[in-house]
Amino acid sequence: MDIFLAGRFVKTATEHKVFNPYDGSLVDTTFLAGTAELEEAIEAAREALGSMRELSSWKRYEVLMYIRNRLLELRDEFARTITAESGKPLRYALGEVDRSIQTFTVAAEEAKRLPGEYLSLDWTPAGEGKEGIVRYFPVGIVAGIAPFNFPLNLAVHKIAPAIAAGCPIILKPSSTTPLTTLKLAAIISETNLPAGSISILPMDRTTGNSLVTDPRIALLSFTGSPEVGWKMKAAAGKKKVLLELGGNAGVIVGKSADLQLALEKCLSGAFSYSGQVCIHTQRIFVHKDIFYEFSYRFAAMVNQIRSGDPALDDTAFSSMIDEANAIRVENWVNEALAGGARLVSGGRRQGSWYAPTVLTNTRDEMLVCSREVFGPVVTLEPFDGFTEAVQRINNGRFGLQAGVFTNDIQEMDFAFANLEVGGVIINDVPTFRVDHMPYGGIKDSGLGREGVKYAIMEMMEPRILVKQRTNRQF
Amino acid sequence: MDIFLAGRFVKTATEHKVFNPYDGSLVDTTFLAGTAELEEAIEAAREALGSMRELSSWKRYEVLMYIRNRLLELRDEFARTITAESGKPLRYALGEVDRSIQTFTVAAEEAKRLPGEYLSLDWTPAGEGKEGIVRYFPVGIVAGIAPFNFPLNLAVHKIAPAIAAGCPIILKPSSTTPLTTLKLAAIISETNLPAGSISILPMDRTTGNSLVTDPRIALLSFTGSPEVGWKMKAAAGKKKVLLELGGNAGVIVGKSADLQLALEKCLSGAFSYSGQVCIHTQRIFVHKDIFYEFSYRFAAMVNQIRSGDPALDDTAFSSMIDEANAIRVENWVNEALAGGARLVSGGRRQGSWYAPTVLTNTRDEMLVCSREVFGPVVTLEPFDGFTEAVQRINNGRFGLQAGVFTNDIQEMDFAFANLEVGGVIINDVPTFRVDHMPYGGIKDSGLGREGVKYAIMEMMEPRILVKQRTNRQF
Amino acid sequence: MDIFLAGRFVKTATEHKVFNPYDGSLVDTTFLAGTAELEEAIEAAREALGSMRELSSWKRYEVLMYIRNRLLELRDEFARTITAESGKPLRYALGEVDRSIQTFTVAAEEAKRLPGEYLSLDWTPAGEGKEGIVRYFPVGIVAGIAPFNFPLNLAVHKIAPAIAAGCPIILKPSSTTPLTTLKLAAIISETNLPAGSISILPMDRTTGNSLVTDPRIALLSFTGSPEVGWKMKAAAGKKKVLLELGGNAGVIVGKSADLQLALEKCLSGAFSYSGQVCIHTQRIFVHKDIFYEFSYRFAAMVNQIRSGDPALDDTAFSSMIDEANAIRVENWVNEALAGGARLVSGGRRQGSWYAPTVLTNTRDEMLVCSREVFGPVVTLEPFDGFTEAVQRINNGRFGLQAGVFTNDIQEMDFAFANLEVGGVIINDVPTFRVDHMPYGGIKDSGLGREGVKYAIMEMMEPRILVKQRTNRQF
Amino acid sequence: MDIFLAGRFVKTATEHKVFNPYDGSLVDTTFLAGTAELEEAIEAAREALGSMRELSSWKRYEVLMYIRNRLLELRDEFARTITAESGKPLRYALGEVDRSIQTFTVAAEEAKRLPGEYLSLDWTPAGEGKEGIVRYFPVGIVAGIAPFNFPLNLAVHKIAPAIAAGCPIILKPSSTTPLTTLKLAAIISETNLPAGSISILPMDRTTGNSLVTDPRIALLSFTGSPEVGWKMKAAAGKKKVLLELGGNAGVIVGKSADLQLALEKCLSGAFSYSGQVCIHTQRIFVHKDIFYEFSYRFAAMVNQIRSGDPALDDTAFSSMIDEANAIRVENWVNEALAGGARLVSGGRRQGSWYAPTVLTNTRDEMLVCSREVFGPVVTLEPFDGFTEAVQRINNGRFGLQAGVFTNDIQEMDFAFANLEVGGVIINDVPTFRVDHMPYGGIKDSGLGREGVKYAIMEMMEPRILVKQRTNRQF
Repeated sequence: MDIFLAGRFVKTATEHKVFNPYDGSLVDTTFLAGTAELEEAIEAAREALGSMRELSSWKRYEVLMYIRNRLLELRDEFARTITAESGKPLRYALGEVDRSIQTFTVAAEEAKRLPGEYLSLDWTPAGEGKEGIVRYFPVGIVAGIAPFNFPLNLAVHKIAPAIAAGCPIILKPSSTTPLTTLKLAAIISETNLPAGSISILPMDRTTGNSLVTDPRIALLSFTGSPEVGWKMKAAAGKKKVLLELGGNAGVIVGKSADLQLALEKCLSGAFSYSGQVCIHTQRIFVHKDIFYEFSYRFAAMVNQIRSGDPALDDTAFSSMIDEANAIRVENWVNEALAGGARLVSGGRRQGSWYAPTVLTNTRDEMLVCSREVFGPVVTLEPFDGFTEAVQRINNGRFGLQAGVFTNDIQEMDFAFANLEVGGVIINDVPTFRVDHMPYGGIKDSGLGREGVKYAIMEMMEPRILVKQRTNRQF
Repeated sequence: MDIFLAGRFVKTATEHKVFNPYDGSLVDTTFLAGTAELEEAIEAAREALGSMRELSSWKRYEVLMYIRNRLLELRDEFARTITAESGKPLRYALGEVDRSIQTFTVAAEEAKRLPGEYLSLDWTPAGEGKEGIVRYFPVGIVAGIAPFNFPLNLAVHKIAPAIAAGCPIILKPSSTTPLTTLKLAAIISETNLPAGSISILPMDRTTGNSLVTDPRIALLSFTGSPEVGWKMKAAAGKKKVLLELGGNAGVIVGKSADLQLALEKCLSGAFSYSGQVCIHTQRIFVHKDIFYEFSYRFAAMVNQIRSGDPALDDTAFSSMIDEANAIRVENWVNEALAGGARLVSGGRRQGSWYAPTVLTNTRDEMLVCSREVFGPVVTLEPFDGFTEAVQRINNGRFGLQAGVFTNDIQEMDFAFANLEVGGVIINDVPTFRVDHMPYGGIKDSGLGREGVKYAIMEMMEPRILVKQRTNRQF
Repeated sequence: MDIFLAGRFVKTATEHKVFNPYDGSLVDTTFLAGTAELEEAIEAAREALGSMRELSSWKRYEVLMYIRNRLLELRDEFARTITAESGKPLRYALGEVDRSIQTFTVAAEEAKRLPGEYLSLDWTPAGEGKEGIVRYFPVGIVAGIAPFNFPLNLAVHKIAPAIAAGCPIILKPSSTTPLTTLKLAAIISETNLPAGSISILPMDRTTGNSLVTDPRIALLSFTGSPEVGWKMKAAAGKKKVLLELGGNAGVIVGKSADLQLALEKCLSGAFSYSGQVCIHTQRIFVHKDIFYEFSYRFAAMVNQIRSGDPALDDTAFSSMIDEANAIRVENWVNEALAGGARLVSGGRRQGSWYAPTVLTNTRDEMLVCSREVFGPVVTLEPFDGFTEAVQRINNGRFGLQAGVFTNDIQEMDFAFANLEVGGVIINDVPTFRVDHMPYGGIKDSGLGREGVKYAIMEMMEPRILVKQRTNRQF
Repeated sequence: MDIFLAGRFVKTATEHKVFNPYDGSLVDTTFLAGTAELEEAIEAAREALGSMRELSSWKRYEVLMYIRNRLLELRDEFARTITAESGKPLRYALGEVDRSIQTFTVAAEEAKRLPGEYLSLDWTPAGEGKEGIVRYFPVGIVAGIAPFNFPLNLAVHKIAPAIAAGCPIILKPSSTTPLTTLKLAAIISETNLPAGSISILPMDRTTGNSLVTDPRIALLSFTGSPEVGWKMKAAAGKKKVLLELGGNAGVIVGKSADLQLALEKCLSGAFSYSGQVCIHTQRIFVHKDIFYEFSYRFAAMVNQIRSGDPALDDTAFSSMIDEANAIRVENWVNEALAGGARLVSGGRRQGSWYAPTVLTNTRDEMLVCSREVFGPVVTLEPFDGFTEAVQRINNGRFGLQAGVFTNDIQEMDFAFANLEVGGVIINDVPTFRVDHMPYGGIKDSGLGREGVKYAIMEMMEPRILVKQRTNRQF
């Protein structure tokens, strides 16, 4: 599959093979962009700046809805590509395509609703007769860097807002999973967007680093690991930086919780796509009065998870993205066990497959607690007071989302006021996300917000028009 | 005290005496406006339309803050006038002045924040290049009709928004309690508002009816009884009508409620100013498991209410506005008792004084349940399911506010989604109101909303400016 | 064609024939609803209240987009029905269908964006710890009454917002042009909206009057003539009333105007669909320095208008809705000529056809100036100062929209601040409208606003939830 | 004068003398904070995080209004301190105090209006029953670094929003002009803000650099030179950075301009406070048809500027902040003259005084054009087409504000759409600013926006609460 350079599909000097993480088979061969291709993409984007900015609402809407409708037609085909290159079970891959359809839909609608503001400026005599109109203008060229775990939708969360905002974008997909995005490029190439407005270029990390440092790029939007993300911020020069990083998301199961609901949601939050999700449910805190019942029933459910070939309809769990990551997770679990943690379930590895694993008796400083595990591991701990549970979650570097199962108004309000995260999810896991809600972390989990409208606003700059109203008679 | 006609204090042919409801003493003598004065006020208001509309934000702000600051200086004096003419205990009268200070403060601030909207209009090819700006313009002359029970603040809720919106206003205070508003007129006359912009005219009902029917008036804002209000709507011709009427507000005390909090709030909601409050707590529904404890403790608290001369600092309860109303309440209570209701407390009348009264074993169709009692009477009934309690409150003509004491998220959400009222107050009585919140009823309780910003918007009309943006090169 | 009663297509006792205004041929036979059918529709709507209110955003969206997509498929068929029953030239009928498609699209999108508000309520110590959430709830059953001139889109402006708001609606189309709306009913019947939620019932005026007076209906939304509309307001009881009435819209052509643009737009604004448009361009005021050139060129263009069979692709002008109206227009023009007006062009009638007519030397009190002509007549008058032109437009009962051709910032600002209308259109005729902009008149031209989002808001009531935030430790 | 460390006034080991730039006299002696004091300030701020976040609206309002009222009382005294330490003519110093009063007023009002958002989340079946509430929480400790040119108001633009947002703040005033801010600290110390919430610490640059690098600080808000600002961004680690830098603001005087207005505004924009203003009018482009008249009249007006002792009421112009800067300006002007520029007026230096200087025949690459001159120098150049004038302004690194004198709608719209700046000021100079409008630059002129509400929002983080609404029957 060729790569997408400023509206054209091209080959480059560097071939790149993509393998299926489940069975190691070759999925397809594509290419890596080099310095020359990147330079061409940037210059083409510069030339597209004016025509992108001038696109009327209805043209942006038409383009975005066209892509959305084509995705809907090719839903199954896209899902199978996701599964093939990422090892994500098909049922979740279909869900991801559905979410991308929704992301494009919302972007199309928001393209018509770019906000403006009217301000009276005559609040003091110095402003007598003055009024202001604030409108938003595209920030310039956007560079997007997307991860492997949602090969389609996390790229779409950069591309769709860029089109809505009127910004040219150069997107670097993960080298592990570039094919789905290149399939999307094929749809984009059917529209009449300005040629330079979209490039989708797999690259090695060195080449990709130019996206961070090049001064012609106005905004860097990165989704990936905290380590990489924060270094990029320091190297980004004058550009704006949007970081969607990970975390070690926690959930609190309070005394008044609906236990069956909590169990089902936690199971899905902990083990979907082997926990390779930014808002993977990593830590579960259960009120001590219901801890034993919760643990017992949870362990039983974990043992029922259907693992297997991700391409089969009824598979819920499969291998991780590669063996290196499975080994890393194995090491972290072993570190915990060596430190006194107790294994409730799982703890086995086979190649790139790691079993759904539940630990208890952990301590906050263990790697499985303090770092982003990005694997099928969850810890289960009792708590006594609700305040204590909130503090356990706040303890640490991250702050993405948190879940709280409760039916108590005071607990809900306390959690919202005090959990240091970007999102507090009541009666669901932190893993919950719909695509138009503001999404992003604080502390080490990131900077800025995505969620279509919010991403669009990050890609725009306000400009105020100040006018003098007179009542001249004439 | 003279009346305030288009910026001047004048006497008229009709003297009008104002008496103290507690001891029957003469408070002061003022005048009733006749047809000629009203005509002059309307014509002066017409002439002020242009200059009011043109006032810049900072001038509206300065005027409103001047009035606010003077009210703060004269706080005690205003409270004593309220107490003298309305019989409201001094502590509540002071509270009312404080609220009016806040109402003016918020109106001053909102006068700078009259909203505007920016709209892209190029959602279809037909709008290519078009954009819109929506601004709000004063609706025209406002007529305000205010009741006796909050002689200051309910008039201020019409005057302050009118100034903020740039509308001339003619205010008819209750003939029973016109003096406080005329004192306010004295402050207004110290500002440099256009002469015709404010008139405060006590009138008899026949003269006042012209405010309803005169086609030069653009908006009628009425606070008072449902019977009168709805008739006005039918007679109002082309003008907009804002009705703030009463109700038979109910409160639900759920099983998870903080009982002590519920008891204290209900006591105050039921008996403050003898229940002569639009959102008087008239019906209390208590979960059957806690009904007996609630009833027992509530009755004990009712017996502790300190009744006496309203001008004394520690008086919490005093006489009603007049003997006619006390007799009406007595009759309604007797009707209930005759129909099988049981008296928990109170039920005695002495002249215009009616005791704090608690009934139980009532039925929805009794007058004390179905009508607005506007007196110190509350009913206390048990319920079984929460849904049933919500239905009891919805049952009937009114829908102003409702209170719910609960700590259960599902009950809170169910109440918000299903109580047919303008406001659902969690863990407080329906009697709760702060002056900037949207306030008003549905069903027979009214039409439209007050609450400074909301009242301002009712007094304004949107107007859109549609422009063509071109990118002409020149 | 059967009528649409609470989800079913039914016949009634009263047959009703629809004729083609151009050639008098029978288009189709349908039925008029009687009292029994209306009663059934109202009771079915009551039953649908709960299920309509509970529909989630995505369900409302799906229904509205389904209807939108079907309209797109049947675009041509719908346009031909409009032309057949209303005599509207096909090119304009196609434009009307396109607008209805857009109206449904926007309603679908807005159904997901029903606003909510978060308010801190702790602005004074009395509100310490309190916060408020304002949400909007459907007002109840809506009655819509639509006119003949846009048989589809003006009905859609009531139906689509009602679905988005979650209100059941009973729509009375014009008896002259009921068929297009009944075709729309066929599409609606394919969706899974609750059965009682939509009824489309042609009725005679007497039966229809129950829509105005019945207390079970919460909102009356009427588009039609001022005479009828204002009477309805008086008879409407407690219900909310939204009136979209007509006017005598004026346009100003200033000295700095782009003359060619002004001429083309005025021609279309004056004569499209024989002026049978609420915002028909009825009065043109041209700066005296360019008056003669404008008049000369305008008259020449009027003579080129292609009149003929509305069903032909290139017809731009055809007959009026019926002969009675053509005769009325003829009489008004004759009244003007008798009073000293001069005929620039047109002035001839043939059956229901009335020629595109231009008058000059008119006076404000002539019927063709002061009343809504609703026919192919326009007046052309010179002005000297810009202020004078604005005053001429403001002079009179109406205030819907006004157009201003100018390139002068001060003239634009003066026009926006001083024209007493709902919309000021710069460099276009008052006849300009896109379907999502706020639209509606002041003065005698109406009450309230349509334009999808605005109509939705008229159909909803705010409700505030007040909560106490505590920081209870637990 | 002692420095203000976490609520207390303290001395340090390092004395610091402040001199009057006009006459070199000693104004007062104060101190520089060292590492120990800064550490104490940061730790105290950390401790204040919780209590600042919990302050209710009315408490923030009361504190901010208290400071505002005290500033109003001490207006003259504050202005004289500004003049003494900065050399700013008294009339402008009084203006600055007035602006700070307004900045505090607006912050007080906005503290009550921190936005919240209500979102339906059921746009797809995955969100069925879900809804979201977005609220904003203080970002953490703010570090503010303020410049010498507005010793009061540019510090207030950091302090007042921080209080409104609930963020502790450590402010470093310019070492040249620290006294005014320390006088403000005296007022702040009279309030009951938490002790650690505010520190005002003059420091040397090395100590101050810790404000940039310390990870406990969440946001750096810097106003100053581009060179320093952009380096700070690179060194800021994970913290958010707000940069208000300078520019080389340009103004366009179009053919349709009101010439007298343009001349007066340009004179003031170019020479107020010797051009030491971030939005100093540095470049004037005049349409060629009016260029000679403009130049002639402008030169005449420049010669009338009253220069002298800044402490006198009628002085409009005085010395620069120090001789080093005056010499720098002299060199830049000489570079321009050597390169072919022509001196229209001024060009003389006397110690720290530099004459109001007008140059013409300059080229874009000269220092007086391409860099921020921050002195009393303006260039005057003719242009032919309007597009060309816009391109001249866009040419270069900066983009803060631009002014356009025109009466042409198309020119206004073109300027707004195409000038690459944060603010386009129609019929006024780029130097125009009122304190509540969004203010800030793009390109090298900065990052983010101030203007009370906008600065508050930069200091807050959104957090979403996601809840499940059910209609459980109970």
